[in-house]
Amino acid sequence: MTDNKRLATASEEALWRIFTVPEAPDSTLSIIEQNISQNLAGFLRESIVAVEKPLWQIERDFQAYQIPAEPSFVSDYAENIMEKLVAHSVHTAAPSFIGHMTSALPYFVLPLSKMMVGLNQNLVKIETSKAFTPLERQVLGMMHHLVYGESEGFYKKWQHSANHSLGAFCSGGTVANMTALWIARNRLLKPDGDFKGVAKEGLFRAMRHYGYDDLAILVSERGHYSLKKAADILGIGRDMLIPIPTDADNKVDVAKMREKALELQARHIRVMAIVGVAGTTETGNVDPLADLAALATELQCHFHVDAAWGGATLLSESYRYLLKGIELADSVTIDAHKQMYVPMGAGMVVFKHPSSAHAIEHHAEYILRKGSKDLGSQTLEGSRPGMAMLVHACLQVIGRKGYEILINRSLEKARYFAGLIDLHADFELVTAPELCLLTYRYVPASVQQAMQKAKAAGDLERLKKFNDLLSGLTKFIQKRQREEGKSFVSRTRLTPARYHRQDTVVFRIVLANPLTTDQILHDVLDEQVELAKMDKEFLPKLLQLARDY
Amino acid sequence: MTDNKRLATASEEALWRIFTVPEAPDSTLSIIEQNISQNLAGFLRESIVAVEKPLWQIERDFQAYQIPAEPSFVSDYAENIMEKLVAHSVHTAAPSFIGHMTSALPYFVLPLSKMMVGLNQNLVKIETSKAFTPLERQVLGMMHHLVYGESEGFYKKWQHSANHSLGAFCSGGTVANMTALWIARNRLLKPDGDFKGVAKEGLFRAMRHYGYDDLAILVSERGHYSLKKAADILGIGRDMLIPIPTDADNKVDVAKMREKALELQARHIRVMAIVGVAGTTETGNVDPLADLAALATELQCHFHVDAAWGGATLLSESYRYLLKGIELADSVTIDAHKQMYVPMGAGMVVFKHPSSAHAIEHHAEYILRKGSKDLGSQTLEGSRPGMAMLVHACLQVIGRKGYEILINRSLEKARYFAGLIDLHADFELVTAPELCLLTYRYVPASVQQAMQKAKAAGDLERLKKFNDLLSGLTKFIQKRQREEGKSFVSRTRLTPARYHRQDTVVFRIVLANPLTTDQILHDVLDEQVELAKMDKEFLPKLLQLARDY
Repeated sequence: MTDNKRLATASEEALWRIFTVPEAPDSTLSIIEQNISQNLAGFLRESIVAVEKPLWQIERDFQAYQIPAEPSFVSDYAENIMEKLVAHSVHTAAPSFIGHMTSALPYFVLPLSKMMVGLNQNLVKIETSKAFTPLERQVLGMMHHLVYGESEGFYKKWQHSANHSLGAFCSGGTVANMTALWIARNRLLKPDGDFKGVAKEGLFRAMRHYGYDDLAILVSERGHYSLKKAADILGIGRDMLIPIPTDADNKVDVAKMREKALELQARHIRVMAIVGVAGTTETGNVDPLADLAALATELQCHFHVDAAWGGATLLSESYRYLLKGIELADSVTIDAHKQMYVPMGAGMVVFKHPSSAHAIEHHAEYILRKGSKDLGSQTLEGSRPGMAMLVHACLQVIGRKGYEILINRSLEKARYFAGLIDLHADFELVTAPELCLLTYRYVPASVQQAMQKAKAAGDLERLKKFNDLLSGLTKFIQKRQREEGKSFVSRTRLTPARYHRQDTVVFRIVLANPLTTDQILHDVLDEQVELAKMDKEFLPKLLQLARDY
Repeated sequence: MTDNKRLATASEEALWRIFTVPEAPDSTLSIIEQNISQNLAGFLRESIVAVEKPLWQIERDFQAYQIPAEPSFVSDYAENIMEKLVAHSVHTAAPSFIGHMTSALPYFVLPLSKMMVGLNQNLVKIETSKAFTPLERQVLGMMHHLVYGESEGFYKKWQHSANHSLGAFCSGGTVANMTALWIARNRLLKPDGDFKGVAKEGLFRAMRHYGYDDLAILVSERGHYSLKKAADILGIGRDMLIPIPTDADNKVDVAKMREKALELQARHIRVMAIVGVAGTTETGNVDPLADLAALATELQCHFHVDAAWGGATLLSESYRYLLKGIELADSVTIDAHKQMYVPMGAGMVVFKHPSSAHAIEHHAEYILRKGSKDLGSQTLEGSRPGMAMLVHACLQVIGRKGYEILINRSLEKARYFAGLIDLHADFELVTAPELCLLTYRYVPASVQQAMQKAKAAGDLERLKKFNDLLSGLTKFIQKRQREEGKSFVSRTRLTPARYHRQDTVVFRIVLANPLTTDQILHDVLDEQVELAKMDKEFLPKLLQLARDY
């Protein structure tokens, strides 16, 4: 950059221009934007390099630690960012990238996002959001209705009621879960006589007042790690988020949860909340929600459902029965940026009772005055962008009938893929898809036979040897497939009952991208078979071990 | 909408199209988008109606509580949203809207936002963010350097170090403040012998282990309300966020804070953190940060600075001295969506020590594996969008020299406006601008004279009568001005020392919009003079009271 150019940009005049004069239509950034508008899929495909560059190489371009003194031209910046950032980002929308919970976006959310950014509303208070607040309240009402299906009178009364809220918009599921458990804690340790409540007096005084030795939150061992964070920040302690074993289907064992709860009670430990998972992150299974609700009633504790990922299934009339009992929850987390095809940053929690959030309400003089309809008085976050608009847009444009098709197709695609795996001699389905998520691994047929034999003989030690080698192989294939850049599956570690609770690394697949075709699923398996052959460490040992047995 | 249209949209084919085929260039939404691109200011000016519609009228358009069964055409939706939502949103970028902390945006952030949304990265883990993670780490490094100015070696060592972080991106200042105080709490109540630390065992056991009766956080009475939320969620209790009086300049009285701290210590109450405010929300003043740092050292507690709004002043070489001592803080909150001209949703907290966030670190099997560079293991939030890109863009394109001009201009404009108010016979400057925020009120000259007389006579009762009437008048003017839609100033309630700590409602002005001209400032005052005349309740009484005295 010449000195001349620098001066041009660092002047008052140049600064005025970046706030008033848009990019010329033929500028680099405008051309990039036109490409995005005209063909997002093409833009992503062409801009993101397929073959993975190692992270340490990428990092070389992000070493500077001083804010540059000199301004840059927007077009220089745009070129730079295309090469250094965009080229090495992740193609989350690719139909063959079936390892993430994010997928393709409908086109209309892009121009609407731009409008949202341009309007730059702040949803913390009416003064900086105006119509966005009623809109946000409406979206929360619609999501509340999706979960709880209350009467028209209910929504007429509460949807726009000052000092009430049917839910909260959050940056994501983590904040949504925290919000729900914060409410649970504050409602349990509420004001009582001279005691002003945990919100005002803190947890130490609250525990002494109520005479508990500890608080506990019970959840399936498959619960999301954000619940641990919530237990930490709320002062409950991570160790008091008690993981309860799951059955063979990765659903929490409610009898065991009840047993644990009674044991805790006997030790003066108050069960503050139980959490049901509706779509576990690792296997996609749904806990028996109605049974959990009954247990919560018995224990007189808060019942929260983490449906961050699975909640969108409620949009399908055909499959919403899978989440039966969710309507009994006191609070439910749903992320619109997962299966609702909204861009990142659209978490929500809905509350059964419109006054739930009173337990965390706060006011301030210059904003959030009492009696105003600001939703910011009942949220964990303060300033928030108008993401509700994008959820609103998807709900209206796609509609329930559209979502019905999308959700059903995802679930059916997962069943189809599970069938492919089952039929393939060299793959093993580890967890079948209840929603649109499944796990599996590559196990050569001869190894499968040898393992059957070892299993029949009760030779757990040998099974463990196989399992460990298979885990190594799975990791190899997953990593290599990611690096090749044609397709992506994720991986996780499970301890399935059918593998004697032995550590088992598996491929993890989420089939929510409407653009993923059957052919792609076939190709993913074919590629994995080929990649397996490239492994010189685990596969030879596995085959040897199978032969020797 | 005809049945025919509905069917067209609810088909598989139509759904496929919304994920693959962009809007036609002549569609309603495309045309709207082109307007935004070509002339954002014009789009906002023309789309947002000037005269305010009452909220209850706006709400009528957001009554439906059922997700519509039928899909909508994107163009129908776009038209609808322009009329029902955009028209009644807040023109936060208007040069005459000088009551908010958000202002105009540089044009290039709009296409970049769209790119960010299209890429749909999730910053929680490398697997879904790739180059966005090094970029986010770089931005945090740059902000760290802006605050702490460590050596090159420091940043080489830590900026990209796995399991370390120089800060955290947050949805906003509230989450940033919570993150900082969460770290403070967990570091104070750390593992010790058999005690596994507050993170694992919870606050009740921690307090018993360490033998404290309570924890306290000390902050100026002008501290942001988010700190109260933090005290609540962390289990400290809102009552233990102890407000310390400020001096005549709205800066915290450090001697009084020290006194309070010693008193608390004597009562076995552990001061967990003291918080300095660098730019109070209501008056824009900066606490004596170096003195607070010394006090924190004496008390051996965490020193956090909430510079959510004022932190950007560090970008001005001419004025950064106003925040002297900030480099001594253990953690600092800065919102890029306030004075750094980034859209809503870009909060940050930076940590003096790269290992600070270890106190809140967490891992999970399928993501955030130990040793990986995922920043999500050290943040309060989970899934997060790539907002760091927009901060990165502004830092590069505007550069320090550009920000220098912008920040200086804002501060100087505030001084200019303060001068206008001082010179005007019918206005009274309540708090002078230390940064670019000031408060004032309309007080007719005759009332000013009468109040001087009452003051000289020590007639506090009469002064209170004047003050209360003036507060009513200020509210009237502020509300009326907002409704008229030409300009917007906010209001708050103060208890200024010079008004004998009597409740005083004031106009509050933030002068960060580069497009606000001197003429606009003159016009705002002229409009207020005119609006005051329309008040039939307070003004006549005020004038009468002044005449009678």
